Amino acid sequence: MSIKFKSIGTIYTPFKLKEEMPIQSKGAAGIKGTIKLKKKFTKGLKDLNGFSHIYLIYHLHKSINYSLLVTPFLDSEQHGVFATRAPKRPNPIGISVVKILTIKENMIEVEGVDMLDKTPLLDIKPFVPQFDNFETDKIGWLTGKTINLTKIKSDKRFQ
Amino acid sequence: MSIKFKSIGTIYTPFKLKEEMPIQSKGAAGIKGTIKLKKKFTKGLKDLNGFSHIYLIYHLHKSINYSLLVTPFLDSEQHGVFATRAPKRPNPIGISVVKILTIKENMIEVEGVDMLDKTPLLDIKPFVPQFDNFETDKIGWLTGKTINLTKIKSDKRFQ
Repeated sequence: MSIKFKSIGTIYTPFKLKEEMPIQSKGAAGIKGTIKLKKKFTKGLKDLNGFSHIYLIYHLHKSINYSLLVTPFLDSEQHGVFATRAPKRPNPIGISVVKILTIKENMIEVEGVDMLDKTPLLDIKPFVPQFDNFETDKIGWLTGKTINLTKIKSDKRFQ
Repeated sequence: MSIKFKSIGTIYTPFKLKEEMPIQSKGAAGIKGTIKLKKKFTKGLKDLNGFSHIYLIYHLHKSINYSLLVTPFLDSEQHGVFATRAPKRPNPIGISVVKILTIKENMIEVEGVDMLDKTPLLDIKPFVPQFDNFETDKIGWLTGKTINLTKIKSDKRFQ
């Protein structure tokens, strides 16, 4: 049984190809993108300008098929796909936190984009540190590897 | 054009009704739930046990229709739905961060569940503070209101 969603808009970014992309929004400092919400949803943005950051939930639309074991960008060993943020997932859903620059009618300019150009947007939620930040140092295979987040870019492995 | 996903498993929680539920996982301390992943995806959990927290991305399956303006649980005024975490959204997708207690084959016991019993699961991603925590104090209409997160429960407004 399928669960059906419809794009609520489109995320425009500088990234036309799957390679040489930032691998997380924390690795995309200063990189700007534009969200064009479908006009019929514009009213849903009321008061969003009070927040500095938002979650974007989107369809990894160029991710065809999936693997249960993947070698992620930050490692040379295989891990279960649910223990990674790799894009080839049974349900190709991406989440990123980006910074709001401006909101004008149905257009949101943001900073920190790490998704492909023309990515279909599924949802926007306000980021609230009191809800969304969690402190833990138990990060499995990523221990000692997150420092490379701003250096390593995507490559062709998930074509 | 629809974007189609399929449930990868089910989240079991103590919550059979939409009222009297925690309104965020931060308001669900000590509340345990069980994720039953479909067996064919079990291999995708490899190495997840190294992490303490995970994102659950799920279908708010009892959320029928949506409103662009909503009065959220933590306020008495209307806001755009995308400036809230209210469940009645154009695409009813929920995200929660929960703590892993145990993983045995395709079953994950977790703590901090804030979703309905038998919620269809769409994705699991490891929570990584270095990727996912953002510091900001600009939280719009929620300013001064997040302190009520552990006191206020859901009610019938989104039936």
